Amino acid sequence: MERKKFILEEKDMPTKWYNIIPDLPEPLPPEVHPGTKEPLPFDMPLPPPLFPDAINKQEFSPESYIEIPEEVQRIYRAWRPTILHRAHRLEKTLDTPAKIFYKYEGTSPPGSHKPNTAVAQAYYAKKEGFTRLSTETGAGQWGSSLAFGASFFGLEVKVYMVKVSYYQKPYRRIMMETWGAQCVPSPSSDTKTGRDMLAKDPDCPGSLGLAISEAIEDAFARDDTKYSIGSVANHVLLHQTIIGQETIKQMEMADAYPDIIVGCVGGGSNFAGMYLPFIKDKIKGTRPELRVINVEPESCPTLTKGLYAWDYGDEAGLAPILKMYTLGHGFFPPPVHAGGLRYHGMAPIICQLHKLGLVEASAVPQLATFEAGVTFARTEGIISAPETNHAIRVTIDEALKCRESGEAKTILLAHSGHGHFDMAAYDAYLSGKLEDYQYPEEKVKEALASLPQVP
Amino acid sequence: MERKKFILEEKDMPTKWYNIIPDLPEPLPPEVHPGTKEPLPFDMPLPPPLFPDAINKQEFSPESYIEIPEEVQRIYRAWRPTILHRAHRLEKTLDTPAKIFYKYEGTSPPGSHKPNTAVAQAYYAKKEGFTRLSTETGAGQWGSSLAFGASFFGLEVKVYMVKVSYYQKPYRRIMMETWGAQCVPSPSSDTKTGRDMLAKDPDCPGSLGLAISEAIEDAFARDDTKYSIGSVANHVLLHQTIIGQETIKQMEMADAYPDIIVGCVGGGSNFAGMYLPFIKDKIKGTRPELRVINVEPESCPTLTKGLYAWDYGDEAGLAPILKMYTLGHGFFPPPVHAGGLRYHGMAPIICQLHKLGLVEASAVPQLATFEAGVTFARTEGIISAPETNHAIRVTIDEALKCRESGEAKTILLAHSGHGHFDMAAYDAYLSGKLEDYQYPEEKVKEALASLPQVP
Repeated sequence: MERKKFILEEKDMPTKWYNIIPDLPEPLPPEVHPGTKEPLPFDMPLPPPLFPDAINKQEFSPESYIEIPEEVQRIYRAWRPTILHRAHRLEKTLDTPAKIFYKYEGTSPPGSHKPNTAVAQAYYAKKEGFTRLSTETGAGQWGSSLAFGASFFGLEVKVYMVKVSYYQKPYRRIMMETWGAQCVPSPSSDTKTGRDMLAKDPDCPGSLGLAISEAIEDAFARDDTKYSIGSVANHVLLHQTIIGQETIKQMEMADAYPDIIVGCVGGGSNFAGMYLPFIKDKIKGTRPELRVINVEPESCPTLTKGLYAWDYGDEAGLAPILKMYTLGHGFFPPPVHAGGLRYHGMAPIICQLHKLGLVEASAVPQLATFEAGVTFARTEGIISAPETNHAIRVTIDEALKCRESGEAKTILLAHSGHGHFDMAAYDAYLSGKLEDYQYPEEKVKEALASLPQVP
Repeated sequence: MERKKFILEEKDMPTKWYNIIPDLPEPLPPEVHPGTKEPLPFDMPLPPPLFPDAINKQEFSPESYIEIPEEVQRIYRAWRPTILHRAHRLEKTLDTPAKIFYKYEGTSPPGSHKPNTAVAQAYYAKKEGFTRLSTETGAGQWGSSLAFGASFFGLEVKVYMVKVSYYQKPYRRIMMETWGAQCVPSPSSDTKTGRDMLAKDPDCPGSLGLAISEAIEDAFARDDTKYSIGSVANHVLLHQTIIGQETIKQMEMADAYPDIIVGCVGGGSNFAGMYLPFIKDKIKGTRPELRVINVEPESCPTLTKGLYAWDYGDEAGLAPILKMYTLGHGFFPPPVHAGGLRYHGMAPIICQLHKLGLVEASAVPQLATFEAGVTFARTEGIISAPETNHAIRVTIDEALKCRESGEAKTILLAHSGHGHFDMAAYDAYLSGKLEDYQYPEEKVKEALASLPQVP
């Protein structure tokens, strides 16, 4: 019987995160203060410090490897190492000579890769004496992961959840509460930002940008509180590199090396966590043929249609200004079900690699992603998150190209999580009610007209 | 660092199911025809044959071990072997000298132990040339597992889902559809049973008993169709023994043996799957001290308050009559959130073991189970199914007794699945809206008055 799963023992779990910054072909641009427009010191991304000290130090660390604290390793071991699967049935159904592998992060208790960084961020906050974390969440993946991570350290968590999602998707909110977090709809009456917005528009449905502003204001206002972020930032990508490092060992067990690595990108942390430990070899020139495909929604095509420019990380302009591909911080992406991919920008590390031609990007329409997701469910058994379905679409397309060409390429899919809380989206697809969204070119043009001017 | 997980490689997955029937201290009573009241031949539980031939042969097989077909093994390997965890954090929080282990079945794609038998039943149906399966489902765990299992063999599946659940819990229905099954609310207009009921009461909310009748009628009516059942029957327990056999190997890896095994029982297949491979040693006298605790809801206390008698497996009296502990086939258990435990009877194998004093039973109230479940979520990270919370409650209680007595007992918890589709129940608990239900003694008395008379 051909092997289906490649399983690492706990003792083989990596004990260090891999930091790509010293290996980048060019220095990464600094982060810029949203008010003064001055570059921020590398060890303090935003004053007053939003993050715990250890996190600030990690953001631009010159070290190639950073020790994973033993307590974080212990918690990782509740679900890590995760399993690398060979997709035999998908290959057979596609009748392709390609070999498809997928690394599945959906067995973490919150159901995705997000706790890899949530646990670490909670650990450092606790270690430095803070007792509370604030954050924002859209559809709830990140908020529930931080609630999960913080529950191990007895930290309070306050999550500002975009109001429209708060009411439409109560299950993620209940998860947060089950792990002991407090979750309020944003705009809330708990912050000045929220109160101002409610005074202006009591029916405001909220936005991720606004929720970020509330969470930042909350953290600024209290000495016991630090802010946590779920993607984009360098330290978040750093924490996710455990995925790729495990995968390297598992691909060795399978006696294979990827020709193509495929994953979905919103802020980019899940997929960067997979491929940064691989791309290192391409940077060094030892794996020049390696292809890495960042997949995004056709309706929010940051890498494929955005500008490489300075822009705010959030809509309200409170977060640091980053050099990245962007559709403009004022751009509201269409309501695709892949909520985690509805972001105007992209992790600066990914953007630099893309700018330098080391990685590729591909944009896919919503309907085609669900078609791929259903094929995956009916062959590999797993019902995937709508975000992940984007990566599955391109994986299948590349496997079908191999059928045409007869090439037996090895494709590695970064599978970021399950779709248990997204069944309404599957229902819409299966009942023919799901739509594709046009790329809103005019709106992007408008949003790109008001980028901040950085000297 | 103390070991958290005990992981088996694919190659160490058991290749046979363990059949306890030849090892039982007394012969298991036969199944009885619901119409004639005559004992059924052991190799044909109900004429005309409801199940594929291979399944009928397994129901009372005299063989101690039955080969798991290679194709079934191959599919099992999508998520099996499952992991045995040591609950370090729960132990620490309870400040108990007890060692707590749990075998977690929630990483299967449908989220529970159910696919262990669903895959096997689909395999045999396909092998014998049938192209379609019919079944019933309450809250949807079983229906979604059969949809999952059948998707690997290209079988059509028709699931009759209790109408009230069909509308209240749409996510499980959508899962079934994603895996390609058809799911209709029961009573439906697709069967005579359903049409008759709709004519009598167009607003009938349905019941599991009625849904079983529809599914059986469906299978009887078509040559291409066999019926599938998710618990109670001997062959279902047989297929679940992969759980316990894996656990024996994993406990050996942990250099431990359980003093107490705890699990929840509705029809009983999950927990029997865990403990039958262990109880064998108690039957043989080599592990006389082993305690096995079957946990049930206080409001549906089949083993603790039911009669050991002949009764129908379903409400309508179409299914075989079984010798079992029962609260009466006409008994409708109160609407506890643990839908999988709302069954009037119990697997005959478990009932015999209980009658002979080889296993124990304990009944717990709903609120206490959710309290235990939240403790588990905040220590071990996993949000468990309401059914599983019953077992967690007793596990915690036994661990607290160890704190009192100072004994370092080894407790093994059969963790049957996650609660991702039960978040509304957690919401009710966390917001103080969850209730306990009194044991409906009078209703049970009434239901027990109309047991079938078997000569």
